[in-house]
Amino acid sequence: MQISKRIGSMGEPALLKYYPLVDEAKKKGKKFYYLNIGQPDIETPQEFMSTVRNQGAAGKVLSYAEPEGVPELRTEASKYFRQFGLDYSPEEILITNGGSEALLFTFLTIGNPGDEILTPEPLYSIYKEIAKASSLEMKGIMTYAKDGFSLPSEEEIEKLITPKTKALLITNPNNPTGKVYDRDEIERLKRIALKYDLYFIADEVYRDFMYDGLEYVSPGQDPELKQNTIIVDSVSKRYSACGARIGFIMSDNDEFIYEIRKLCQMRLAVSSVDQMAAAKLFKLDTGFFDKILREYEGRRDTVYEKLGHRDDIIAKKPTGAFYYVLKLPVIDAEKFIRWMITEFGKDGESVVLTPANDFYLDPENGKDEVRLAYVLNQKDLARAADVLLAGIDEYKKEHPENIKEEFKK
Amino acid sequence: MQISKRIGSMGEPALLKYYPLVDEAKKKGKKFYYLNIGQPDIETPQEFMSTVRNQGAAGKVLSYAEPEGVPELRTEASKYFRQFGLDYSPEEILITNGGSEALLFTFLTIGNPGDEILTPEPLYSIYKEIAKASSLEMKGIMTYAKDGFSLPSEEEIEKLITPKTKALLITNPNNPTGKVYDRDEIERLKRIALKYDLYFIADEVYRDFMYDGLEYVSPGQDPELKQNTIIVDSVSKRYSACGARIGFIMSDNDEFIYEIRKLCQMRLAVSSVDQMAAAKLFKLDTGFFDKILREYEGRRDTVYEKLGHRDDIIAKKPTGAFYYVLKLPVIDAEKFIRWMITEFGKDGESVVLTPANDFYLDPENGKDEVRLAYVLNQKDLARAADVLLAGIDEYKKEHPENIKEEFKK
Repeated sequence: MQISKRIGSMGEPALLKYYPLVDEAKKKGKKFYYLNIGQPDIETPQEFMSTVRNQGAAGKVLSYAEPEGVPELRTEASKYFRQFGLDYSPEEILITNGGSEALLFTFLTIGNPGDEILTPEPLYSIYKEIAKASSLEMKGIMTYAKDGFSLPSEEEIEKLITPKTKALLITNPNNPTGKVYDRDEIERLKRIALKYDLYFIADEVYRDFMYDGLEYVSPGQDPELKQNTIIVDSVSKRYSACGARIGFIMSDNDEFIYEIRKLCQMRLAVSSVDQMAAAKLFKLDTGFFDKILREYEGRRDTVYEKLGHRDDIIAKKPTGAFYYVLKLPVIDAEKFIRWMITEFGKDGESVVLTPANDFYLDPENGKDEVRLAYVLNQKDLARAADVLLAGIDEYKKEHPENIKEEFKK
Repeated sequence: MQISKRIGSMGEPALLKYYPLVDEAKKKGKKFYYLNIGQPDIETPQEFMSTVRNQGAAGKVLSYAEPEGVPELRTEASKYFRQFGLDYSPEEILITNGGSEALLFTFLTIGNPGDEILTPEPLYSIYKEIAKASSLEMKGIMTYAKDGFSLPSEEEIEKLITPKTKALLITNPNNPTGKVYDRDEIERLKRIALKYDLYFIADEVYRDFMYDGLEYVSPGQDPELKQNTIIVDSVSKRYSACGARIGFIMSDNDEFIYEIRKLCQMRLAVSSVDQMAAAKLFKLDTGFFDKILREYEGRRDTVYEKLGHRDDIIAKKPTGAFYYVLKLPVIDAEKFIRWMITEFGKDGESVVLTPANDFYLDPENGKDEVRLAYVLNQKDLARAADVLLAGIDEYKKEHPENIKEEFKK
């Protein structure tokens, strides 16, 4: 018996890798601030929970939902997305088991084994695994902390196109960098998508998490990109409902929708209860998110006030999602994270971070970077940042061998 | 832009293909008995619904569940399956988005593109689509209505093994045939699995639907097959909870479990609400299914009394699941099904069946067969069978060109 090459080549997410160490330290009484996972702490709207309650009271037979999703959810989603200039009919919207199934189905549909998808790097680490499961190759458009992770010029991006390139993929706002792509960057990618006849996939699960009044720009708003664009979304982040596995695929490309529907039929249905409850979320007053947005913007600022002005950290202020990629004075961030968990404590407290090399295609990149998720209230977040800074200062003294030359003094 | 070959080659399930015709006929006032889909009509246990109610009342943040499934469900499932001689620890049980995700993940893990899976034919039609999505080849062990769909000899099966064969797959009890494999047949497959070092996948979603006091035999009970066996299961049929997308992968093969866990991590989680509610189902008194089993056995008998003694139908009495594959006197069952929907009516009523050629790898096979699902109460089922027989009799007169020679007189 064998294990297939595609699955054998997959990795385990770095997110999970430190939990045994954390558990051990917790047993010894250490308290941790979890800055490593993108699990919002905001309350799930009561409308979800009360619909779940009513579902439980109502149904007699919990039947299969339609393979494409229940009509009520598709209709409500269609109305909801129109306010962002995303004009998709219910028939152009498919419901999936979370955004991750939306991406898996999309990858399986748009490329033959060996075909390539081009995406800004650092990239959401799960893309690498979905690509392996689909026998596709991820190729990176490298972006840098010092530039706030902006895209390079059109010419630089074009150099990366090969005959095997089938799609451009952006996470916008970006996980892990928090970068929001502006109109000029989207236009660059648009010209390339049209010139080389590529799908333009926009993973917009963080759409609502945009700060400083930035303009939302999506290929889904552009009539010239109607055939190219595939929008992926999810209720997880906006509605703080990660445990409801409800994602979306939207496209005006009839052939693509016809073909990807076969994958929906193959797996029969998405959870009926989750779908009915999610439909109610889309009926919420659009003002519901205003308070949450202000809270997240405040969190971003709290982190920036603490970490943004250090000489030994590169931390440009991100404008979206709820992440920072921080460039630290350390040579190997994995070692530093491990030390923070097992050795360090400030008044019995420490923090858990994610090593950023998991967000690069070559794990030799991003070795001096970490991802920080600001999913704690501002008081805890300020405290966590202080603990992190104290950790960096102590680590410099105790482990100079893992500190870059210029920060050793 | 392109559509990948794997998805382009997939089909649409025949199950769904007649719905537009049915909708049209319904508008004209025709009433239909749906014998085409495997959606049980039995009430979902109140324990599921009340847990959903309580979940709705309790949770504040609906968080991601663990990638492998919530511990409570894995623990309860582990206890439950032990009573069948399936001895899996919670760590050897992974929770999936329904049985279909369990199969997709299994296929992706056990074979490289072009590798083969051997399964009795007719086969559950979705296997064909999962194989295409996974770039694997399904190969059939042909079985026949006249033999009650029993397996051929060990020698016959061995002839079908090639260097690309990586797994044997059985649906036991079988969908679409209702066949339950006996100890002798399982032993035949066991010897082949061991001789050729193959995975032995048993899809046992209909495990509880076994009649006439038959013995349950599973490769999961056999210590010599511990490394080979992969059990796939689901709550859908047993608990009449198809709309809860909760499936299972169970295996003693540590390497297999380690690798397939990566796919669970890739798609982050399964619905939290569905999992918590499903955990309660496994705590139900084991007697809860007795009444349901008697009801289904009665349904099977009702169909047999009506259809089992006709000279022009081959309908051996099945011993499991809730399906018959019927060999009809017609040459092309698809035409007959279409005619039943659009033309025929007995007192304004007709039936919807599934053409069986969808359950064969070559659609030229099974052209004279249909699958009948007995998921109606016995009164409706008896009436539906009468309607079907009246339809066959009238069709013989009206469409002799689609009737086999020997039944024309």
